[in-house]
Amino acid sequence: MPDQVLDDISHRRFNPLTGAWLLVSPHRTKRPWQGQQEAPSKNVLPEYDPKCYLCPGNQRAQGDSNPQYDNTFAFVNDYSAVKEQQQEYKPEAAKDDVASLLLQAQPVTGRCYVLTFSPKHDITLADMTAAEILPVIQTWTRIYGSHLAPSHPLKAQAEKALASIPANPDGEVDPPKDQLRYMQIFENKGAAMGCSNPHPHCQVWTTSALPEEPGKELAQMTKYRTENGRHLLQDYAKLEADKGERVVWQNAGFLVVCPWWAVWPFEVLVIAKRHVRALVDLTDEERLQFAEAVQEVTRRYDNLFETNFPYSSGIHQAPLDCTEEEAETSWFHMHFYPPLLRSATVRKFLVGYELLAEPQRDITPEQAAARLRDCGGQLYRKLLK
Amino acid sequence: MPDQVLDDISHRRFNPLTGAWLLVSPHRTKRPWQGQQEAPSKNVLPEYDPKCYLCPGNQRAQGDSNPQYDNTFAFVNDYSAVKEQQQEYKPEAAKDDVASLLLQAQPVTGRCYVLTFSPKHDITLADMTAAEILPVIQTWTRIYGSHLAPSHPLKAQAEKALASIPANPDGEVDPPKDQLRYMQIFENKGAAMGCSNPHPHCQVWTTSALPEEPGKELAQMTKYRTENGRHLLQDYAKLEADKGERVVWQNAGFLVVCPWWAVWPFEVLVIAKRHVRALVDLTDEERLQFAEAVQEVTRRYDNLFETNFPYSSGIHQAPLDCTEEEAETSWFHMHFYPPLLRSATVRKFLVGYELLAEPQRDITPEQAAARLRDCGGQLYRKLLK
Ligand SMILES: O=P(O)(O)O[C@H]1O[C@H](CO)[C@@H](O)[C@H](O)[C@H]1O
Ligand SMILES: O=P(O)(O)O[C@H]1O[C@H](CO)[C@@H](O)[C@H](O)[C@H]1O
Repeated sequence: MPDQVLDDISHRRFNPLTGAWLLVSPHRTKRPWQGQQEAPSKNVLPEYDPKCYLCPGNQRAQGDSNPQYDNTFAFVNDYSAVKEQQQEYKPEAAKDDVASLLLQAQPVTGRCYVLTFSPKHDITLADMTAAEILPVIQTWTRIYGSHLAPSHPLKAQAEKALASIPANPDGEVDPPKDQLRYMQIFENKGAAMGCSNPHPHCQVWTTSALPEEPGKELAQMTKYRTENGRHLLQDYAKLEADKGERVVWQNAGFLVVCPWWAVWPFEVLVIAKRHVRALVDLTDEERLQFAEAVQEVTRRYDNLFETNFPYSSGIHQAPLDCTEEEAETSWFHMHFYPPLLRSATVRKFLVGYELLAEPQRDITPEQAAARLRDCGGQLYRKLLK
Repeated sequence: MPDQVLDDISHRRFNPLTGAWLLVSPHRTKRPWQGQQEAPSKNVLPEYDPKCYLCPGNQRAQGDSNPQYDNTFAFVNDYSAVKEQQQEYKPEAAKDDVASLLLQAQPVTGRCYVLTFSPKHDITLADMTAAEILPVIQTWTRIYGSHLAPSHPLKAQAEKALASIPANPDGEVDPPKDQLRYMQIFENKGAAMGCSNPHPHCQVWTTSALPEEPGKELAQMTKYRTENGRHLLQDYAKLEADKGERVVWQNAGFLVVCPWWAVWPFEVLVIAKRHVRALVDLTDEERLQFAEAVQEVTRRYDNLFETNFPYSSGIHQAPLDCTEEEAETSWFHMHFYPPLLRSATVRKFLVGYELLAEPQRDITPEQAAARLRDCGGQLYRKLLK
């Protein structure tokens, strides 16, 4: 490995998905830590919590009652960041040049869902088997598929997928009347990542605008494809599988790596090995392979510091409403951004320098991948029992 | 105000300094909070802490002893993220096309300083008067000025500034031998922002590379200037001073606003009113005006929730080594990014959607500015005594 020197020197790495650089300072983990400690996650939750707004049968803030659901349950967020209907906003005609340049706004409509992973209050994806995670993937696929624009290039794929997945009324949601542009599926896990309820769940925000991050990725992937005639993530997955040093785990359908450009200490990217444009492209077999990948990542995370590992994660795929070219350029992948650095209680803060100048990380992605490779095996909590 | 409707509807706003959009959801503060609470900051610190590595006279991790300094004290960080000397790294010649595109790295050298604001362990900028903050601004100016490239367009300005500022041996640092490209001055305040020592201090990271954020800003400011023949922040400061609704405070030299595109709940931008390219451009009078602005921001922050308000802040100005055009395009300003949202214990988490899709905020910048305007007056702690 000619790049061994990067283990010792400060350097910048380039993220081709976003077009941005970050600073890597491998020697920096030696400094003592006297700052904030995260509360170690206690695992003393009941299987059912009568006060939880996500548990089966309970009442929610605005009065609705949850059904006695079996695996997933989807509903419109009682405190959505975007709504379907709102007053109209038309920026005044640009009388004032400077204001129209410097005070730009555009209205956004949309709908936000909450989706539980399980009726059990006290478990996480790491506690679930791949077979138990499969209904989550199926629900994501059905929700994504049902929200596609009528003219969407993946419409036929979506119908095929929806036909092959068993119906799950509690996990179904009718799309809103107005067609939306993008669907962001994401999970905030753990108090350190702003999660206010430990009941296993994710969120699905659909908006009339294409948000910044998937927008940047699409632009970068389009550029790469135009310049090189191949897909960025196709080339990247192949390259990483060959090199091996950043690979955490893989199966026939998915590669799990700590990406070359990881910002968060144990950041992980799950990449489809073949050209999957969105959830609806996955075959029955691939949905299970994806469930396995999610299981492997979350279990290894918990095993790493023997704690309920916090993270934010999310899926990037083809927009809900898009051109043929945007759909073709999309390459299904999932990001995991976990904050812990050195132990269950010491996290990496992405603060001053990171906010004002550029992201800075302390251990190399190669070191992170080696540690995640080494902590497969049974979930540590199971062994404690 | 024709834009009143933006107080009620979800919308995106554009940040012309970075070229990115963010999502604003004004109605969202109504949701109940059951998640992590920040520990309220206790103010029970001693004026001198024998275990603090920043207090006068104490010994640091690597054995050096601090002088009995009077106001500021600067030294090279014992755990720097970048160093002056390191092994060489030359990426192999691009035999392998794909790797040279997707695994890009570049070495970074530099030097990191720590700079205390006061010998007293138990105070913050909010507790200090503008006259007491002035030596901090003077030290920043001297450090910045002494690190400029010999051919720098602001060299003459720097010599003038250095001559007019009283020397302060404890706050002096000799520049490294190799010329560096950029100096990022920033402060992380409070445990919530990753600060590991309450002793009032900031950091100064100087690097051989221009980091992402100032790089993006320079590019955007250059574009604006080319297209409009004026400075972006000149136009913006004038526009905000005219409108008034986002102005927090101002004096003859500086405007303090919650910017139109603020991401953090009470984010603040301090903008020089005239064309100040860097610290060394400030006159004696302006340095005091800037100290006043910093005082006003930090005191109002503490008054807002009657707590030691956490934030990350930092200065953007002309690079240390730059062209005539880059220097001319630079416009001195300071960002404050504070995480608290609703009280001393409830913060805004920029997590799942923010990391995966785009930043989302809950209150409008206009609401934030109104609240900060209203909490001037004495520091709440002084009134409690
Ligand atoms: O250098 P410190 O204060 O120990 O560290 C703090 O600030 C740095 C610069 O923003 C961050 O990289 C660290 O994560 C944070 O804990
Ligand atoms: O919607 P929740 O889980 O209440 O809120 C959490 O996730 C949101 C989306 O990432 C963030 O905007 C909030 O700051 C965070 O607390």
